Amino acid sequence: MIEPGVREASAPVVRVRGGTIATSDDWLAIERPLEIRARIGGQERVVSTTMRTPGDDRLLAAGFLFAERVITAADQIRALESVGEDTVVIELAAAAEAALQAAQRPFLTNGACGVCGRLSLQNLLAVPATDGGGRRPPVPLAILQELPEALRAAQATFARTGGLHAAGLFGAAGAPLAVFEDVGRHNAVDKLVGARLLDGRLPEPDAILVVSGRASFELAQKAAVAGFGTMVAVGAPSSLAVDVARQAGMTLIGFARADGFNVYTGAEHVEGIESKHG
Amino acid sequence: MIEPGVREASAPVVRVRGGTIATSDDWLAIERPLEIRARIGGQERVVSTTMRTPGDDRLLAAGFLFAERVITAADQIRALESVGEDTVVIELAAAAEAALQAAQRPFLTNGACGVCGRLSLQNLLAVPATDGGGRRPPVPLAILQELPEALRAAQATFARTGGLHAAGLFGAAGAPLAVFEDVGRHNAVDKLVGARLLDGRLPEPDAILVVSGRASFELAQKAAVAGFGTMVAVGAPSSLAVDVARQAGMTLIGFARADGFNVYTGAEHVEGIESKHG
Repeated sequence: MIEPGVREASAPVVRVRGGTIATSDDWLAIERPLEIRARIGGQERVVSTTMRTPGDDRLLAAGFLFAERVITAADQIRALESVGEDTVVIELAAAAEAALQAAQRPFLTNGACGVCGRLSLQNLLAVPATDGGGRRPPVPLAILQELPEALRAAQATFARTGGLHAAGLFGAAGAPLAVFEDVGRHNAVDKLVGARLLDGRLPEPDAILVVSGRASFELAQKAAVAGFGTMVAVGAPSSLAVDVARQAGMTLIGFARADGFNVYTGAEHVEGIESKHG
Repeated sequence: MIEPGVREASAPVVRVRGGTIATSDDWLAIERPLEIRARIGGQERVVSTTMRTPGDDRLLAAGFLFAERVITAADQIRALESVGEDTVVIELAAAAEAALQAAQRPFLTNGACGVCGRLSLQNLLAVPATDGGGRRPPVPLAILQELPEALRAAQATFARTGGLHAAGLFGAAGAPLAVFEDVGRHNAVDKLVGARLLDGRLPEPDAILVVSGRASFELAQKAAVAGFGTMVAVGAPSSLAVDVARQAGMTLIGFARADGFNVYTGAEHVEGIESKHG
């Protein structure tokens, strides 16, 4: 599933440690722009550019368009190809044109801007409820506590750059299903969602998404659209991430460490909590 | 300089620690969409929407448009006002119209997308050289080592949410000049750049920008456009952040801790290094 792509580069660095100064080489996570182009009815145009770590670019493109609700199923993708180092072309059925138009916004943008053009909070929170949210099996507390370490272990390949965010998907019993890394937190989640979409596995109410950083609105929304039942963040959630998780019926956990975590919504789906604090 | 805005909210949380489960309240960093509208010649339109922590919204709008090179000086801003909770209207001279058109891009966007539409790496790296880059006084190594702790100390107000990124500006002798926090790293830097712009202080080749997270391309570019001579990141830099810093003549430091740091570019401007490893 992992596609080729040069993900890290060596660069000279001056290291200062205590009283010692030494010149050596360091590994840097590579960041380059990826252009995502859509082809509909023979017409091709740029729909997005994102700064990403190369590799799995086609998954990133598919996951991104799914999270943006331009496509709602893998079979709406007619073709998906990498062109050169930094371009992906995705061919869509004519029916996708309206959704693409609706999603495109003639705005200046900056970080965390998947929300441009969907301004009202009401619209922002209008995500589909996580499929089977009310019926999914409870996740054991012990499994949840192991996941941050499991994600870190899966990140070992890139550990030397220290510069990559990770998104991992785990089964209800804690088995790793997929892990992706990227300089951009959104990209790591998009690559993962793209992989599961193309495998025909979404929605996955029993699956647990684990992210290495904080839970922002945008990441929570991507998880909700993908239909993951549980999201675990190593860092803090924002107020709006909690709102979107509650709206979607998703369990949201933050500050996940080996010795504990905080449950912000959906505690009734955690085994060991539900009876006492549902 | 700090404008009002509710930055954190209390929310119920189930805390799991070791074998203990308890329900209590936790503080969440507030994340809400900010709409930035431009008024030129009586015509008003949305130019950007960003997910931000409320407060200092006018600074955010000014800093964002400066970083995007829609404006190049504070006197191009005719008026700057907050409207309601989540909108800023910035009135610009007619001359800004062309730059605004050039900067707007009819693309779908996601995180870290300030680069949309400036696709070629050549264009991406076309930032102005940091003013006085070659002539600025060297920064003592001991000062650089103190900055991460100084930034953390200035973050004390928001320490309880654990969910805010910080950007701080320090003088060459380590004195704090300004500190801003936000759920979005880009927003914290935009607020800071906006504050210095409106104070008529840019470019500031002697100043040191310290960011609480990693150094991405986009953050390095904002620092270079603002003309800060030195950027210090607590986390790792990406390959492209190093490229943009080198191009701008900016000193870029990563993995900054109390016991040391790595210098990726511009080591000749660090006092104590320049003679041995310039």
